[in-house]
Amino acid sequence: MIKVRPVVERMHGYVPGEQLRGASVVKLNTNENPYPPAPGVLAAVAACASEELRRYPDPMATPLRDAAARVYDVTPERVLVGNGSDDLLTMVMRTLVGGDDVVVYPEPTYSLYDMLVTIQEGRSLTIPFPADFTLPPALADTTGRVLIVCNPNSPSGTFTPVDVIETLVRGRDGVVVVDEAYVDFAPASALPLVARYDNVLVLRTLSKSFSLAGMRIGLAFGQPALIAALAKVKDSYNVSRVAIAAGVAALDDYAWMERNVARIVATRARLAAGLRALDYEVLPSAANFVFARRRGDDQAPVQAALRARGVLVRHFATPRLADALRITVGTDDEIDRLLAELRALR
Amino acid sequence: MIKVRPVVERMHGYVPGEQLRGASVVKLNTNENPYPPAPGVLAAVAACASEELRRYPDPMATPLRDAAARVYDVTPERVLVGNGSDDLLTMVMRTLVGGDDVVVYPEPTYSLYDMLVTIQEGRSLTIPFPADFTLPPALADTTGRVLIVCNPNSPSGTFTPVDVIETLVRGRDGVVVVDEAYVDFAPASALPLVARYDNVLVLRTLSKSFSLAGMRIGLAFGQPALIAALAKVKDSYNVSRVAIAAGVAALDDYAWMERNVARIVATRARLAAGLRALDYEVLPSAANFVFARRRGDDQAPVQAALRARGVLVRHFATPRLADALRITVGTDDEIDRLLAELRALR
Repeated sequence: MIKVRPVVERMHGYVPGEQLRGASVVKLNTNENPYPPAPGVLAAVAACASEELRRYPDPMATPLRDAAARVYDVTPERVLVGNGSDDLLTMVMRTLVGGDDVVVYPEPTYSLYDMLVTIQEGRSLTIPFPADFTLPPALADTTGRVLIVCNPNSPSGTFTPVDVIETLVRGRDGVVVVDEAYVDFAPASALPLVARYDNVLVLRTLSKSFSLAGMRIGLAFGQPALIAALAKVKDSYNVSRVAIAAGVAALDDYAWMERNVARIVATRARLAAGLRALDYEVLPSAANFVFARRRGDDQAPVQAALRARGVLVRHFATPRLADALRITVGTDDEIDRLLAELRALR
Repeated sequence: MIKVRPVVERMHGYVPGEQLRGASVVKLNTNENPYPPAPGVLAAVAACASEELRRYPDPMATPLRDAAARVYDVTPERVLVGNGSDDLLTMVMRTLVGGDDVVVYPEPTYSLYDMLVTIQEGRSLTIPFPADFTLPPALADTTGRVLIVCNPNSPSGTFTPVDVIETLVRGRDGVVVVDEAYVDFAPASALPLVARYDNVLVLRTLSKSFSLAGMRIGLAFGQPALIAALAKVKDSYNVSRVAIAAGVAALDDYAWMERNVARIVATRARLAAGLRALDYEVLPSAANFVFARRRGDDQAPVQAALRARGVLVRHFATPRLADALRITVGTDDEIDRLLAELRALR
């Protein structure tokens, strides 16, 4: 019998959204971008098919770090590249959270936070969001090594204005992590706070807005001391040569990303309107998904029925989320299909 | 001031071997393969330059897991895919090692083990290798959550026969990790032990023998309960679509790897003979590098002089290793160049 750490023994692993295959499956469950990565990205990946793959990548992913510094107008010392932003969240926890250290976040939110705190034997102090998912004022009264704000939040899609986040940062002792996985679909970013506060870390991913979920690229922005501390626990070569090249090319065609974001934002409005017409409450979304609720009406059967009809959406079987669906904004055609299937289910 | 965990605050990050660039630089410092990956790998990488990159990869890297199961003749439940074998070592530590848990390994060895134990607030119990780097018998008298044997060992290149490892495994309570990063250059593997013992984990990488250091692919083999426990702490999507495809293609052309290994093994003998002619003691190597020593004669100046002449080799500035160099087996031409520069330095 293998002796696993008790905290890991008790843990359920994170359950990623289903990756069902099939030509006619409409996949609206994992917040992937329905549009392809930029042509330059595909060219950069193809160009990696060379003997250079026998060489280790640059440990700090320097070309991508430099590209991110250029695009986001910071110095490279303020950037850290991760194997997806999950890798960066892991670094945050391993750097800052030891036994019994407290990590604060409003919930419901991205369930990985809880798992990562558990693995560190830290304690999660969670403050419930109100029904409208505005940031709970009680967060300001908490202390802890880390405060995480997922903004826009998942699964609600709701957005907290940056000045509200800034009031939380100001005078706070611990590190404030702003997980901006979905921020390119939102009105503003907390990135400017990095220049003003040494305890802010902003996380980005190229998985959503840049259509690169399959490539695993995350970016962290913070002041140099914080970035250097995180880098200490980083796997030496955490980002492959291909991911570095793809990331550079993606940032180089920022306009491609913005164009796709604009299309998704337009479709998001159509999706929300369609869902409201079907008697769903839809929270205002600043992400590439919407959160649609029918109060007190468990949506697990709806998810299952949609799945049987070849449309995947996300359902979370927890008390606060059971009456809701999280639906990725796909193409207009995909959204039409979803809405038609929902109508047929009535 | 950011409060970093004390163990991380005190830690020096792992220092990867230098990645100096330049057309005429001979890079013999990071144990990369001098020969390119198989043509099928390059084709597979190029084929990944498609809109599919917008999709998340399979969380368990199933196609690669299946390919590894086929090639190594185990069931897929006995395989776990990592973002390099460093990622797998991190999973081992996060799954098995909590505060004050003991991790045993002979030293000097791969310095990452110590860092990973430190991050977990565990304790490293190290048993010194004798001068010939045979496995210290005192290991058998230790207890601990994990015992790690790097086999062949780095930086010594020496190989411990599998039956010696098996005597350590038998009746041992903790998990025995056999880090076989270099095993394709060695006479035998501990992989058969996985079938017989539930506490053995064998780690492999495609970085060395398969010429894929730039792609980040590691494989762990163990019984299903151990693999499932490790998977719980795995990043959800730790291996990219490109790495999965490249890994499958690499394993599909096993003969390509074996051909390159045979060339490297032949060159290794020439390198060892050349170094002995220059009055180095050379340990018998079962890896793609050799460990060459001049007793009591600090090799830091030799490394620096070689570097100035465009030849990179690895030197470790620790008391037990200071009088040695670790030299990667390159092509015959690269080895001729190294030996010529060493001769010129005399």
